[in-house]
Amino acid sequence: MRGNVDWRVSATLVGTVLKWLSVPLVFPLLIAVYYGESLFPFLVTIAVSILVGEALVRAGHEGRLGPREAFLMVAVTWFAVPLVGAIPFVLAGTGSIAHPVNALFESMSGVTTTGATVLLEFETHSRSIMMWRQVSQWLGGLGILVLATAILSQIGVGGAQLMESETQTRDVNKLTPRIAQTARLLGGLYIGLTLALVALLYGLHLVGLAPNMDLYNAVAHPLTTVSTAGFSPEADSIMAFSPAAQWAITLFMIIGATNFVLIYFALQGDWRRLLDSEEFRFYVALLALLSGLTAVLLVFDGTYPGGTEATARHAVFNTVSMMTTTGYANVDFDLWEAGAKHVMFVCMFIGGMAGSTTCSIKTLRWLVVLKGFRRDLFTSIHPEAIRPVRLSGGVIDEETIRDIYAFTLVNLLLFAAATVFVVVDGARVGLALSEFDAMGAAAATFLNIGPAFGIAGPFGTYEAFPVTTKLVMIVLMWIGRIEVIPVLVLFTRVFWTS
Amino acid sequence: MRGNVDWRVSATLVGTVLKWLSVPLVFPLLIAVYYGESLFPFLVTIAVSILVGEALVRAGHEGRLGPREAFLMVAVTWFAVPLVGAIPFVLAGTGSIAHPVNALFESMSGVTTTGATVLLEFETHSRSIMMWRQVSQWLGGLGILVLATAILSQIGVGGAQLMESETQTRDVNKLTPRIAQTARLLGGLYIGLTLALVALLYGLHLVGLAPNMDLYNAVAHPLTTVSTAGFSPEADSIMAFSPAAQWAITLFMIIGATNFVLIYFALQGDWRRLLDSEEFRFYVALLALLSGLTAVLLVFDGTYPGGTEATARHAVFNTVSMMTTTGYANVDFDLWEAGAKHVMFVCMFIGGMAGSTTCSIKTLRWLVVLKGFRRDLFTSIHPEAIRPVRLSGGVIDEETIRDIYAFTLVNLLLFAAATVFVVVDGARVGLALSEFDAMGAAAATFLNIGPAFGIAGPFGTYEAFPVTTKLVMIVLMWIGRIEVIPVLVLFTRVFWTS
Ligand SMILES: [K+]
Ligand SMILES: [K+]
Repeated sequence: MRGNVDWRVSATLVGTVLKWLSVPLVFPLLIAVYYGESLFPFLVTIAVSILVGEALVRAGHEGRLGPREAFLMVAVTWFAVPLVGAIPFVLAGTGSIAHPVNALFESMSGVTTTGATVLLEFETHSRSIMMWRQVSQWLGGLGILVLATAILSQIGVGGAQLMESETQTRDVNKLTPRIAQTARLLGGLYIGLTLALVALLYGLHLVGLAPNMDLYNAVAHPLTTVSTAGFSPEADSIMAFSPAAQWAITLFMIIGATNFVLIYFALQGDWRRLLDSEEFRFYVALLALLSGLTAVLLVFDGTYPGGTEATARHAVFNTVSMMTTTGYANVDFDLWEAGAKHVMFVCMFIGGMAGSTTCSIKTLRWLVVLKGFRRDLFTSIHPEAIRPVRLSGGVIDEETIRDIYAFTLVNLLLFAAATVFVVVDGARVGLALSEFDAMGAAAATFLNIGPAFGIAGPFGTYEAFPVTTKLVMIVLMWIGRIEVIPVLVLFTRVFWTS
Repeated sequence: MRGNVDWRVSATLVGTVLKWLSVPLVFPLLIAVYYGESLFPFLVTIAVSILVGEALVRAGHEGRLGPREAFLMVAVTWFAVPLVGAIPFVLAGTGSIAHPVNALFESMSGVTTTGATVLLEFETHSRSIMMWRQVSQWLGGLGILVLATAILSQIGVGGAQLMESETQTRDVNKLTPRIAQTARLLGGLYIGLTLALVALLYGLHLVGLAPNMDLYNAVAHPLTTVSTAGFSPEADSIMAFSPAAQWAITLFMIIGATNFVLIYFALQGDWRRLLDSEEFRFYVALLALLSGLTAVLLVFDGTYPGGTEATARHAVFNTVSMMTTTGYANVDFDLWEAGAKHVMFVCMFIGGMAGSTTCSIKTLRWLVVLKGFRRDLFTSIHPEAIRPVRLSGGVIDEETIRDIYAFTLVNLLLFAAATVFVVVDGARVGLALSEFDAMGAAAATFLNIGPAFGIAGPFGTYEAFPVTTKLVMIVLMWIGRIEVIPVLVLFTRVFWTS
């Protein structure tokens, strides 16, 4: 055991991230310049991010980044960035998001790629403010990609170490060259995929297949698609666009929730790694199965607007959107019957592949849980037998399986606790939430999905929740996005003393 | 690995249990004689249980009882006994329980100590039929006590092996002398506790403190109290009786959900074993904490009927009833506000101590889950450290912790699946169940609690659910009571072939 946590090492890293935050803030600033909107909110925010970032860097020092320093850095970064990111909403001073709690909610929802909104009015906001929402999600997706592949996988949170087959080490610091390399590589891929969707959507617009998808929208939506994040400057979300645009976005939601390392190898020509991945096959099978189930239920229920293509599109789009934790909608699925609505609800807990921008439990963990259950049944029949759990040819060590069980359990228990809070706090102020709607809102924030049901439905708003609930949801989005453990450890005595 | 499962060994044991079932059936028969009611339903059932039991014994043979034979025996016994036990309800031909599905539901609810009823009319049934419901629960409690302490603990289902500290072996057969000894010992204790409550309740009646608690009721209720089962011949459940009777029943629900081995030692004068048990302290602390919370919420909500004693009694009684999985009610807690109702809901998932008649997850598992989580947080900070999880001085092996995580997770997932089925199947027939009521009914059957909320509330009935839902609930009660695994393994190929 070493000495106390070296918070100065974490402070330096948080400060560095905050300083870098000033760069993407230039993008909405340029939009503001182009449309002749106020530059003030962004100039102030850029100044704050540089000044606070520099102060933190000076307060800190360089040093060995152990697990505790990494946890602290992750927890603080994912709170500090949304805090700074909320400044433009407050300073722009327009509508519901000008209230500090709402601004922080919207910003946290952005940076955590959640996509839950407290907007009441979409039209009254400037183009630059609406674009900042989109950019914050794109940044959040990039951040999580680096976090998941380079940091969380190394300190082994909730079985995340499984994601890569390379020899594991728990000393993050030794990996610095690799972190930088991985980050550059995946960051480049992320930018490339975003640009590809921009080109595709704007191309569809130019050939007349996506009339409303002008350049602003063709830039705004890819920022929140590849990041499986779900904000849209349109009040009608993706319903505002043509079927062709919807199918294009469906494809990129699926890609955004695929392991980026495997995408990278596939683009290098090594498709086998992707196709041989048991997790990828499980992920695709679940998407197909649940989309099909939704389609059958829609037909069965008579929820059949506009014929076969529209039904298929509604079923596939919303299933993909909810399972990949994006949270776009091309129809108000809150109006569907109980069966189809419950499929959407179940999708929220699945998530996409590990090593992607997706949130929630993720298909890797569910696959290990199912394989673990099957093995446990086998050993209860043959107690003397030793049968390891295998994944894509390799053996998963028992500690990892236990970690994944624990992670899944912690998530379900926190979700349950969050639901009770949401429903009881709502009842306190006379907001008679149904249990289903409360469960949906709790899952949609904690698992970073975005929309759910009822007032928090796909075309609804979180504005009506009491301030206390919104504050709790801010915490839920925060801890959910960084996979809970980095925050939970901060509440143990041993974190600070041993 | 040995050859195929030796189902004949299981058949002999199931047959023996069925033959023994004829003995307790004599009790309602005597009640029928006393009150001059029809003997026919019980005579037929006695004949069936002897004939079918004998046929099974003859079809089977004696032999080594391995894990598979034990699983098969447990799964079949807990289905065959309710099946035979349903015969009197059908043959008596009165009211809703005369329908075969309802009769099986009521009988399964009895034998599994669930306490969910499909009765619409309490008054129209004979005294003997109503007593058979009570007796079936008492038998179910006895059966589970033997199962939990002598069988499940040996084949290590979901960490049940933790319950006793003795050296574990997984060959059940070697333990036959000990099974018989344990069963006799705990059976004697169970009978003794039941008789003690009979004496206490009838004593209260004789001194005028429990006017309605006549001899019939003073016998009927202890049968379903010590077994934490919850049927009552009174439509008003325990609300029909005086505060003194209610407090007496509260005490015996707490005792019924306490580890019987520890009670045995305490009665031998060895109180330290009970008081030193970390699980016992956790169990008592949770009961106190949640009772207190309920009381505070009732006061806060203004749900304060009859002053301080009544509020305390309502809070304590219903919290104890739900947490010990008994399912009695002394007030319609379905009418409480959201906060207090959710405390009841949470209680359902906790359960009492392992090694008692309680159902649900049980405090032992939750304690290990919490200790496991704390340890996992520690090791994510100090990955190099090895820190075992300790319980009452001993070390819990890692496989057991993993089993308990898996068991808890399986239970929560099956509960979620059951909820979706209940709500969607209800919607299919136009029964607009709220998600909360559907969750309550799913948990109340799967976790063998009995009453829940809405139409399945403490003074409600399960009669209104569609037949399909009732059939699924029959399966839920069955698999929930025997801790799921003995049924799940039957669906693996390896169970039948390897
Ligand atoms: K999202
Ligand atoms: K019960």
